[in-house]
Amino acid sequence: MSDWRAWEEIGYKAQKAVSASIPEEWRLSRSQLPADDGSDVTEFAVKSGLLSESEINITEAFATQIVDNVASRKWTAEDVTRAFCKRAAIVHQLTNCLTVIFFDEAIAHAKKLDQHLAKTEKTVGPLHGLPISLKDNFNIPGKTTSVGFCSWAVELATEESTIVTLLRDLGAVAYCKTNVPTAMMIAETVNNCYGRTTNPRNRFLTSGGSSGGESSLIAAKGSPIGVGTDIGGSLRIPAACTGIFTIRPSYGRFPHFDARSGLAGQEAVASVHGPMARSIADLRLWGKSVVGGEPWLRDPKCIELPWRDVKLKNKLKFAVLWNDGMVQPTPPVARALREVVSRLKAAGHTIVDWDTTGHEKAIDMIAKFFLADGGRSCGKILSPVHEPWRPEMKPYEEATEMGCHELWQIHQERTALQKMYLDRWASYDGLDAILSPTTPYATVKHGKFKHIGYTGIWNIMDYSAVSFPTGHTVDKAKDVYGDSFVPLGEMDEVTKSDYDAAAVHGMPVSLQLIGKRLQEEKILDVTERVCADIA
Amino acid sequence: MSDWRAWEEIGYKAQKAVSASIPEEWRLSRSQLPADDGSDVTEFAVKSGLLSESEINITEAFATQIVDNVASRKWTAEDVTRAFCKRAAIVHQLTNCLTVIFFDEAIAHAKKLDQHLAKTEKTVGPLHGLPISLKDNFNIPGKTTSVGFCSWAVELATEESTIVTLLRDLGAVAYCKTNVPTAMMIAETVNNCYGRTTNPRNRFLTSGGSSGGESSLIAAKGSPIGVGTDIGGSLRIPAACTGIFTIRPSYGRFPHFDARSGLAGQEAVASVHGPMARSIADLRLWGKSVVGGEPWLRDPKCIELPWRDVKLKNKLKFAVLWNDGMVQPTPPVARALREVVSRLKAAGHTIVDWDTTGHEKAIDMIAKFFLADGGRSCGKILSPVHEPWRPEMKPYEEATEMGCHELWQIHQERTALQKMYLDRWASYDGLDAILSPTTPYATVKHGKFKHIGYTGIWNIMDYSAVSFPTGHTVDKAKDVYGDSFVPLGEMDEVTKSDYDAAAVHGMPVSLQLIGKRLQEEKILDVTERVCADIA
Repeated sequence: MSDWRAWEEIGYKAQKAVSASIPEEWRLSRSQLPADDGSDVTEFAVKSGLLSESEINITEAFATQIVDNVASRKWTAEDVTRAFCKRAAIVHQLTNCLTVIFFDEAIAHAKKLDQHLAKTEKTVGPLHGLPISLKDNFNIPGKTTSVGFCSWAVELATEESTIVTLLRDLGAVAYCKTNVPTAMMIAETVNNCYGRTTNPRNRFLTSGGSSGGESSLIAAKGSPIGVGTDIGGSLRIPAACTGIFTIRPSYGRFPHFDARSGLAGQEAVASVHGPMARSIADLRLWGKSVVGGEPWLRDPKCIELPWRDVKLKNKLKFAVLWNDGMVQPTPPVARALREVVSRLKAAGHTIVDWDTTGHEKAIDMIAKFFLADGGRSCGKILSPVHEPWRPEMKPYEEATEMGCHELWQIHQERTALQKMYLDRWASYDGLDAILSPTTPYATVKHGKFKHIGYTGIWNIMDYSAVSFPTGHTVDKAKDVYGDSFVPLGEMDEVTKSDYDAAAVHGMPVSLQLIGKRLQEEKILDVTERVCADIA
Repeated sequence: MSDWRAWEEIGYKAQKAVSASIPEEWRLSRSQLPADDGSDVTEFAVKSGLLSESEINITEAFATQIVDNVASRKWTAEDVTRAFCKRAAIVHQLTNCLTVIFFDEAIAHAKKLDQHLAKTEKTVGPLHGLPISLKDNFNIPGKTTSVGFCSWAVELATEESTIVTLLRDLGAVAYCKTNVPTAMMIAETVNNCYGRTTNPRNRFLTSGGSSGGESSLIAAKGSPIGVGTDIGGSLRIPAACTGIFTIRPSYGRFPHFDARSGLAGQEAVASVHGPMARSIADLRLWGKSVVGGEPWLRDPKCIELPWRDVKLKNKLKFAVLWNDGMVQPTPPVARALREVVSRLKAAGHTIVDWDTTGHEKAIDMIAKFFLADGGRSCGKILSPVHEPWRPEMKPYEEATEMGCHELWQIHQERTALQKMYLDRWASYDGLDAILSPTTPYATVKHGKFKHIGYTGIWNIMDYSAVSFPTGHTVDKAKDVYGDSFVPLGEMDEVTKSDYDAAAVHGMPVSLQLIGKRLQEEKILDVTERVCADIA
């Protein structure tokens, strides 16, 4: 092992350390593991007999049910936490989704919560006893925050990210951190330290990125709810790839202080964090609890805006973004969009077409912002251990640093574009939401995720956006490109030639609903209505 | 005149054009003008017999009284507008405070408002018939937006700044734009195009900057209320120098879209706009009306945060910022601060000392942000007409452009500092406001304003901050440096040696009250309480 380069050795040890932190009784032997044949392993933990009846009930439950059952003492926080630790351990052995495990601490924390409830007959807060998984970039003192970098995988955090402390204060139990791609700047989840996370619905496919450790874990019910982040689609892409729900909030709604970034200090387009879960009700529980925790008292960027009740109209108005002018959605996504639109029309809602003027410009712009430091931030994290650039990070490796004068000019273009979109929204008199693909794909084979145009636009606009599974799945018989396909450009052609209906057959198809800035409550309610109407 | 350089000719013509746009009957002959001897000219328009009884009543009124009297048809919008146009014309001839005059349009607009009220018995909005002056950098189609630059003084705006349109929709009448320093980046009001604006309380002294055209006009009652902007103190400094009120809101509270800047696209510390007036009630009328106008529907950066009623505790808690660690307040300001503190204690409020750790770092930082483009933005506006750099702009002339990587590092330092201040605020259990000098000076002789440390800190923090006159005036007998003076540094020594008690004798002394981010309502109420308690 002495021939190894520093970064390789760190990665090898880091992965071993994750495995070693799984209690021995939860480790699976080679013979216990399912064949790596692309079959769905989301229910493997259940079907294999590894979970007890009670552990199955707990881990199949939604977050809303869990907090109710713990508060009413039907379940203990300890049992709930242990069940999720166990299922998470199993899921990790299937999809490589975890980077840091601290089950013992979590169970000890849960016991204290149970004692508190027994003694005071009061819960600590609205998330009392709810296990919550955390994307790797949230700091917890004494644990690593590697963000996919080898050099960072040997450093322990000293401070705690604001959201982590707030969640604990609300009664949540943190028990693991989840894998991300290098610098969180790849739309799949792969890095030189912890390797690649796979999609539990089909491990030949990606769980998306950058919050793809979360999506993999949550889709396989190793976590009821988790925290991810999104600067160009990093919550919505993995949620869509695995068929779960998420909300990308506007900046300042949820606390983001001291979450680690690969592009620290980049502010032209802001990273935000949000919850990922298996229902809208769970996202709302999260949002209402976090905002109710007055995060503006802890995070200087948080806005003092309470969680508001929304009264939706009976009939809503949707503008449909059929394609972003760069890449058409692949056949299953286009079909899901058509079918959802048809159901919404049937339910009496108004449907208009969204004008995509400016969309491509916004996507050009987001790349410029990400690359403005000439890749120096990432380079400085790679270099101490001679970690090589991953091929997906080539744009960062090859970037030239921008001067502030040019940055200021692009800031102005971005603000003008935001104004154009605000005015456009107003021009669709009474518009409630934009309905759009989340990505052009249901999901893709590893290494094939190439276009973030459908998500990145809303980071530039800072709009609230939900990704939700439509209930449709890919059907390789139906979902083929027609002869009438006319490519919008080179990337559209690549998308078509990369598309492999057989490879994604059976995968869930998600769409996106976009609300205005800081209207998180409304877009959750709108999504719930849409899900009911298309069910 | 053919020997003139382009910029000089533009400036000459621009000043002539302002004079020419004053109706002939309101132009003062040389013999009508008061002697330029440093005496107070704020009431010259009244005392000279130039104003009618009715015009005096109108122009001496507060904004709140004006909207009431117009709404109740005691006064017509036309009479009110004409009175302010006349008094503004007179004040301009005394202090050189205006850059663009459009009295005819304003009077025509006022007539329409009167007709609307007569016909519908309803006002157009809460500011119906209220004349409002605008800092030069707000765009009005067909008028110049020179921001103190000669090359811009020959361009006509095509779009209207969001706040201007919103104000019209609320019923306000725009009638003039006011002078600013070059690029609005000098704390006095002087530029190569329109020249220097003086303080109507003593024309040997500055009215401050950059909103010093506004402060000069409002202090002399040529306007009941005006709109200025603030990126380092540009509302609060001129308000303090002339003894009027202003509020620097947090970013996103009032619409700022399409206001022109000399450093367009600089976002690390955000420019905001706010009202300047002669009472807190007037500022509140403004804030409540503007926020009530739902500016988030027009400006993509505005936050959907309604105007909230505040219930203050009976006894408040203040932290006093005695000095910023760089420059001690000059004797009259130090005395006013001591006396206000003593009155607040007597009224039963709690007084503690504010810890200024980090203050100097914030002020270093703000300069770096302003200079990050190496002065290129300003240079590009100067060069088409070969306008020279003003001496006050030397830091911009000599600056070196920063790369985005370094900017990102300073962004992180700024956010860390914001967190430190938020936590510090919380550590003063139950703190309502910080009480501080607005500037080290009452005001200064032209060219002597050198330190923005007391205001710039709150731009870095993005806190809400009010500057208010204390009722104290400089007393050259009392307000002298004691023998015990120990300088905090070089700038403190310069401040002492520049200080001229006789020169500023009789000038009003203002202080600043600082509230948390986005707590505009509260800091206005706190200031009102303080003013009552020290009266």
